Amino acid sequence: MKPQPDLPAALQASIGQRVDLIDTPSLVVDLDAMERNIQRMADFARQHAVRWRPHAKMHKSAEIALLLQRAGATGACVQKVAEAEALAAGGVNDIYISNEVVAPPKLLRVARLAAHLAACGGHLAIAVDNAEGIERLAEAMGAAGSADGIDVFVEIDVGQGRCGVPPGAPAVTLALAVARHARLRFAGLQAYHGRAQHLPGAAERREAIAAAVRATEHTRALIVAAGLPMPLVTGSGTGTLVHEAASGVYGELQAGSFLFMDADYARNEREPAQPAFEQALFVKTQVISVSDSHAVCDAGHKSHAIDSGLPTVALLPADRSLRYANGGDEHGLLYADTSDARLPSLGHMLWLIPGHCDPTVNLHDFLIGVRGGLAAGTVERIIRVDARGALT
Amino acid sequence: MKPQPDLPAALQASIGQRVDLIDTPSLVVDLDAMERNIQRMADFARQHAVRWRPHAKMHKSAEIALLLQRAGATGACVQKVAEAEALAAGGVNDIYISNEVVAPPKLLRVARLAAHLAACGGHLAIAVDNAEGIERLAEAMGAAGSADGIDVFVEIDVGQGRCGVPPGAPAVTLALAVARHARLRFAGLQAYHGRAQHLPGAAERREAIAAAVRATEHTRALIVAAGLPMPLVTGSGTGTLVHEAASGVYGELQAGSFLFMDADYARNEREPAQPAFEQALFVKTQVISVSDSHAVCDAGHKSHAIDSGLPTVALLPADRSLRYANGGDEHGLLYADTSDARLPSLGHMLWLIPGHCDPTVNLHDFLIGVRGGLAAGTVERIIRVDARGALT
Repeated sequence: MKPQPDLPAALQASIGQRVDLIDTPSLVVDLDAMERNIQRMADFARQHAVRWRPHAKMHKSAEIALLLQRAGATGACVQKVAEAEALAAGGVNDIYISNEVVAPPKLLRVARLAAHLAACGGHLAIAVDNAEGIERLAEAMGAAGSADGIDVFVEIDVGQGRCGVPPGAPAVTLALAVARHARLRFAGLQAYHGRAQHLPGAAERREAIAAAVRATEHTRALIVAAGLPMPLVTGSGTGTLVHEAASGVYGELQAGSFLFMDADYARNEREPAQPAFEQALFVKTQVISVSDSHAVCDAGHKSHAIDSGLPTVALLPADRSLRYANGGDEHGLLYADTSDARLPSLGHMLWLIPGHCDPTVNLHDFLIGVRGGLAAGTVERIIRVDARGALT
Repeated sequence: MKPQPDLPAALQASIGQRVDLIDTPSLVVDLDAMERNIQRMADFARQHAVRWRPHAKMHKSAEIALLLQRAGATGACVQKVAEAEALAAGGVNDIYISNEVVAPPKLLRVARLAAHLAACGGHLAIAVDNAEGIERLAEAMGAAGSADGIDVFVEIDVGQGRCGVPPGAPAVTLALAVARHARLRFAGLQAYHGRAQHLPGAAERREAIAAAVRATEHTRALIVAAGLPMPLVTGSGTGTLVHEAASGVYGELQAGSFLFMDADYARNEREPAQPAFEQALFVKTQVISVSDSHAVCDAGHKSHAIDSGLPTVALLPADRSLRYANGGDEHGLLYADTSDARLPSLGHMLWLIPGHCDPTVNLHDFLIGVRGGLAAGTVERIIRVDARGALT
């Protein structure tokens, strides 16, 4: 365990401290649960002979990206150049920006980072979905004078309705455009169906990905017919990885949320073949006000993201049930679910499961890593969220 | 203009840069509009002979808190001890924690900060709503050995349904409990109706505050009858300040959002007597992907908070209208509102008005202050969000 000399004084916890002494609100990781999730993912990927490149847009931590690589992950995905820079500064050297970057100043940073990672024996890749974007990227790579080039994935829209060209001929045109540039290497297809991850029913997720696989397979065949190599199809997420892994088309899984999980994933019907990922991320909060009708805790939506719903209250004794209601930026309202249930008292500590892990992590500077369980464990690691707020 | 030597290299802007060169996504303040808002608020408070103590939970910046004080504000409100510490570190020395703090480690920080501010000729105040909370605060003040004490406001629930004791006798009991402690000074009532701020109709806001004023006036009379001085009633927000200012009961306004405004406040019916606060906070974003049906910009809900609704697209030419739809953590989807409207092209820059200013500011490390308008101005100041992520 390396020393951590640069922690701020007002941090909620210190190494070796008992869990019950962690101040609130704070973002706590159950390290045992997280490591079991990593093992489940590593086993799953090995059984299906696919690579896994977990999305660091979720955890935003170089330390965790390196931990995942030691467990077998190929590298890290990110959405933003600044995320890639933050991970690279923390020693991660195999990074894929699975998103479009078109601003010339950002593309210069991409080119410089590609050269830097190549010099470290590493690797940078990026997605494109537009001919002009490809020209701008090639120009930036030329301006940076890098001899090593960059891997480029053509993104196709397989049902998400966000970025990506339509599958089929438009993707072939872009792949050929990439291949014409000496410093760009056509690396394959980015085919991520983000919306499918959060469909509540297992059957609707299966159908969405079946359609995505057909579109991707067709596009792949056209690219091969056009005379290009087709090294890799990359995509997938925690909600659908069972299907992409079994498809024979996807060679790499980008799932990131499996590491921590959240209330949104917990609500959805589980695919039987899906590894039994468990909740590993919690917001610790405490009661700061009590009334006859409700209690108030110190975690509002500046402590956890509510884009995918409110948090649930976890780890309560069997005879307790509490409902969390939105109390604004800094407060949560706690109501007893049944009329005979007691409300927690002043200072009582509670554990929340955030609605959505990714933007929740982005609200915090540190993850407090606990070993030995949330009931009686101790703080083992304080993990910096290196790319928190890395927006550009 | 003091030099700003400690800005990170990957920041979206630099001092003196033209607005069109600011990288995206970024949080931009129209300094001219902000200063007009400050002047409107200062004039309003003077006309109504009330003090104003803008809530720094919104802007989280010591530089802005000091700017407001130079314009006549009494000091700053905050919700968290860590926010108070961040402002104090930036030179703000009159701070009110308008929220309950009950954790002993935090109360020790409160006591230390009270002593520190008193030593700087400043002042710390805090809210309470519970007898045990008062005992814990007194204990911490004793443990810190501060001779100067702390101002204590008793919070009453005037309709928000969150913190605060019921108006009337319970508040008198707490006021008397405060007055029994040598190091606690009973300073008055905290009476904030947060929910009323966001009621869409002017009439319903007026009724909600009329009820709050009656409850507060009654409580104030009981406290005076119990033999205590009643120095101040503090509360109010941007949505209702017209009513508290005219009440003759409230002596201090805590409104913070007037400084920047947001899409939520803009949607609500305006009270005729309300100063004409204008939008001063924008997320600058650019188009990174285009398709036949929509464009995609690089600002998702890691760039702006969506708890009070999605952002609106501002400052478009008169013949353009675009609707922003949620594209996830890092993306926004842009649809043309009418079938003949054109979609913006790749790289096109757009301005968003966030749904809710407070938690949006909390996602950013810096506010980019522009002088001369968003069309052709330049970057004058880069303002640090000192208390970003200050949760404890």
